[in-house]
Amino acid sequence: MTDVKHMKWWGWGVEGVGFHHEDKPGFAPFVVNAVGIDVWREPVPPVAFSELDVPASEASAELLEALATIVGPEFSTVDDEERVVHTYGKSIRDLIRVRASTFPRVPDVVVYPADESAVQRIVDLAVASDAVIIPFGGGSNIVGSLEPIPTETRTVISLDMGRLSRVLDIDEYSGLAVIQAGVLGPDMEEQLQARGWTMGHQPDSFTYSTLGGWIATRSSGMQSDKYGDIADITKGLRVVQPGKLLVVRPIPSSATGPSVREAILGSEGRLGIITEATVQVHRLPEKREVIGYLFRDWESGLAAMHDINTSDAAPSITRVSDARETAFSFSTSKASHGISGQVQKALFAFLQKRGWNLDEVCLSFIGYEGTAANVAHQKSLVGSIVKKHGAITLGKGPGTLYDQKKFDTPYLRDFLLDRGAAADVSETAAPWSRLKPLYDNVFAAANKAYDSLGESGWIMCHLSHSMHSGACLYFTFAFTHDGVDPLAQYDVVKSAIQQAFIDSGGTLSHHHSVGVEHSEWTEQDISPAGADLIQGMFTAVDPGKNLNPGKILKR
Amino acid sequence: MTDVKHMKWWGWGVEGVGFHHEDKPGFAPFVVNAVGIDVWREPVPPVAFSELDVPASEASAELLEALATIVGPEFSTVDDEERVVHTYGKSIRDLIRVRASTFPRVPDVVVYPADESAVQRIVDLAVASDAVIIPFGGGSNIVGSLEPIPTETRTVISLDMGRLSRVLDIDEYSGLAVIQAGVLGPDMEEQLQARGWTMGHQPDSFTYSTLGGWIATRSSGMQSDKYGDIADITKGLRVVQPGKLLVVRPIPSSATGPSVREAILGSEGRLGIITEATVQVHRLPEKREVIGYLFRDWESGLAAMHDINTSDAAPSITRVSDARETAFSFSTSKASHGISGQVQKALFAFLQKRGWNLDEVCLSFIGYEGTAANVAHQKSLVGSIVKKHGAITLGKGPGTLYDQKKFDTPYLRDFLLDRGAAADVSETAAPWSRLKPLYDNVFAAANKAYDSLGESGWIMCHLSHSMHSGACLYFTFAFTHDGVDPLAQYDVVKSAIQQAFIDSGGTLSHHHSVGVEHSEWTEQDISPAGADLIQGMFTAVDPGKNLNPGKILKR
Repeated sequence: MTDVKHMKWWGWGVEGVGFHHEDKPGFAPFVVNAVGIDVWREPVPPVAFSELDVPASEASAELLEALATIVGPEFSTVDDEERVVHTYGKSIRDLIRVRASTFPRVPDVVVYPADESAVQRIVDLAVASDAVIIPFGGGSNIVGSLEPIPTETRTVISLDMGRLSRVLDIDEYSGLAVIQAGVLGPDMEEQLQARGWTMGHQPDSFTYSTLGGWIATRSSGMQSDKYGDIADITKGLRVVQPGKLLVVRPIPSSATGPSVREAILGSEGRLGIITEATVQVHRLPEKREVIGYLFRDWESGLAAMHDINTSDAAPSITRVSDARETAFSFSTSKASHGISGQVQKALFAFLQKRGWNLDEVCLSFIGYEGTAANVAHQKSLVGSIVKKHGAITLGKGPGTLYDQKKFDTPYLRDFLLDRGAAADVSETAAPWSRLKPLYDNVFAAANKAYDSLGESGWIMCHLSHSMHSGACLYFTFAFTHDGVDPLAQYDVVKSAIQQAFIDSGGTLSHHHSVGVEHSEWTEQDISPAGADLIQGMFTAVDPGKNLNPGKILKR
Repeated sequence: MTDVKHMKWWGWGVEGVGFHHEDKPGFAPFVVNAVGIDVWREPVPPVAFSELDVPASEASAELLEALATIVGPEFSTVDDEERVVHTYGKSIRDLIRVRASTFPRVPDVVVYPADESAVQRIVDLAVASDAVIIPFGGGSNIVGSLEPIPTETRTVISLDMGRLSRVLDIDEYSGLAVIQAGVLGPDMEEQLQARGWTMGHQPDSFTYSTLGGWIATRSSGMQSDKYGDIADITKGLRVVQPGKLLVVRPIPSSATGPSVREAILGSEGRLGIITEATVQVHRLPEKREVIGYLFRDWESGLAAMHDINTSDAAPSITRVSDARETAFSFSTSKASHGISGQVQKALFAFLQKRGWNLDEVCLSFIGYEGTAANVAHQKSLVGSIVKKHGAITLGKGPGTLYDQKKFDTPYLRDFLLDRGAAADVSETAAPWSRLKPLYDNVFAAANKAYDSLGESGWIMCHLSHSMHSGACLYFTFAFTHDGVDPLAQYDVVKSAIQQAFIDSGGTLSHHHSVGVEHSEWTEQDISPAGADLIQGMFTAVDPGKNLNPGKILKR
């Protein structure tokens, strides 16, 4: 009926694509060591879709007819699989629930509007009939921004933005592109790059996330050091609200009172449906390199990232993994690629000869872009800083490999879930001086949680998104679950990590947003008065609570 | 009673300091040519303060007593001059009105709280007694953010933040300083620089504006290309609101829903009183240079700024004046300094020989900071770009002079007002592709306004604050007024310029904020729905409209 692409209902990516370990000899021993699981054991794949118990749509015939009139009958559906795909995002909570057929509330209807005027009519119809609208982009959200409130008694409409997928215009002299909000990352970049441009925004979810979704969740891409977060990239906005259209014109910087642009950013559908954005784009760089480095330990890696940031150097990517994530990276190397096998052995021998403790080694990637001269200049500036911190340069090989694999990590969750382990990610940002204590506190909190559950658990981390006053720490964690109530177990671990973020001076999320998963911590993060201010925005725009209610604020 | 410094009641700066033309031989002929005024004619200085007709305070004895109890009797005053100083900012409208003893509404009492807890008690008292609170920093605002509504029937309290003036803490590893909001620019930088740090924020008003004022109006400094606007610089905030304290923790970047930080920025007192901010600070650079360049014309100057911005170069200042502002700059050179006198003549002869039209020449300043190597590297990158656009390098001399004089321009308004001319400034920002047409439209609109008034008028412009997708154009305009109703004449000119900004794709203000002066254009700029959203914030925080009512939104 529609050619809008979706991920498989039970996991990341499309059917037939997933994580495989057979060609990665280091992976099985790594996982045994980390969480005690034998990845060779027979996996328990998800049930067939037909075995799910999907609640029937409760939409009235009248509403369905009205929606079909707006979007065309072929673009409005009550199909079970469509509704299930639009119920959740792709967090581990979502994956566990969808596999377990846990559906306290499923959208009653999914609609695919073709344009902004259809979106306006749908929103106005929803408000007039007191229905709920939840906008849906790529469906990759991992904080519960997409799920209906379990107790929702009103009709729930999932508004899929997938047909609004065109780059409408590029103002080449200003480096500004007008783009429809429903476009997926690769499709958007293809349209831009065909004309020599790029947005440079590369979140892990890139393949299955949309421009509108990035804006609604304050996304950040791995090249944010150069291109900025989506909040920096987004200049103009068009947002359908009940009975009206909010328009933020593409101004580079402005002093027009409290920022309306920065209110829509991160609003997760609660302030309306983002239909279009005018965003900064850049000429494709003449040269682009990602270089791998090794640090002796986490402290020296962190210190080097700090020093790069306070120097005159301006790389496009700054990233360093802790020793555990470094071990993980080595374990996922293919036998035939990168610094695996013989090369890896030789490297490790060399490091040991230098007196390095192999259990402490930290892998770093730093990216450079621009003219060839600038790439050389920046590499030299960074080179002398990392050298001061004792780093070893691995060269372009590992960087190229990292660049190729960078969007593949989300597949691992499904792979582990098939094998009895729950894995997810959680990131924060904090001032430079807080990063190390925060890291230690998060590890202590996670391990305490694992112990309290009596499960084997693992946690690892990398620093990315360096800013003048601090950086993002991105944690990946996994634990064996009891198979009885994995959600409750997950909540124990996740809560411990989140609370450690807040208590250590970090934010509840650097770029995954709040949803329902983090709303417990909103008031702790921005203070109750800050939450009141946000509530004031919601009430002003949406007094009937028809727009994705229950997200961001717990109240 | 208090040692908080204020500007003179009738103009810019302190008594005894002003603009003088006697040592600037080019100035008198320039002004005759620009607006037909002979600056040698006898000035008409402001009347004596005693001749003003200042309405008496209407504050009740009960309220005054309660305020005195909170701040101490010596820090609460109904003194006429204090109240007049706190009635207006320093726009030309303000200067005209204060000289004419035009006081539709003067604050009834001025209070100087010593700390945040006193601010909280004052705000709560004001709300409980339905009084109005207007926060006051340096008093340099030029868009009417400080004046009470003329028809205000409630008691008006001017809350002077001048006693909250300390740098409380510097987190040196994170480059974050905790600073009280009432500190003036020079005082703050002195405290920071004593420890080797700088905020790098240098608005024209620097000498007489405060951190809290910068935040409340979304200020931008001339080094914003490197240091960012105040919106980039400000990371944490403490804001006293009715009955509560809003706290934004200093997080480098966050995804906690609509940005509360970006709601407080630009809020002009309507969302509470900013008492403290955590801001980015930088180590004093090893080297800092401002280099002067000359372009053949405005088009090539604009094009060079664009190309610098889309290159790998990262200067700290990018600024180019149009030919008229260039002529103005030359006219204010002291006989003994810079490129004046013989040197200037020789330069002009050289340019003529190269075929340049001296009436089209445009002066540019570009700043460089960092290590000596970085300054050299950036200068070389910029050098090849400006060379491509045919520029001539003037070297450090003019740049040093510009750097010394950069905070002096506001004095000119008083000087001209003494001589029958009204002068003011108005700035906007727009995408690069819009700048030239916007510039032309603004000139046409201003000249049409002068013609309609039958007055001699002048307008000139510079580009500053370069960003990826656009830049700020800053206009200075002056005209002879009729002496009968200069305010009405000013409104004709100012309105024409503002409307041209909006109609040409610019914003109503890049960094001077909205106040009452620009509120006519708020809805045109951010759309009525955007204004509704802001109104929702105001209503949520301040349902009784006690916090600086009437600013930002006309409604």
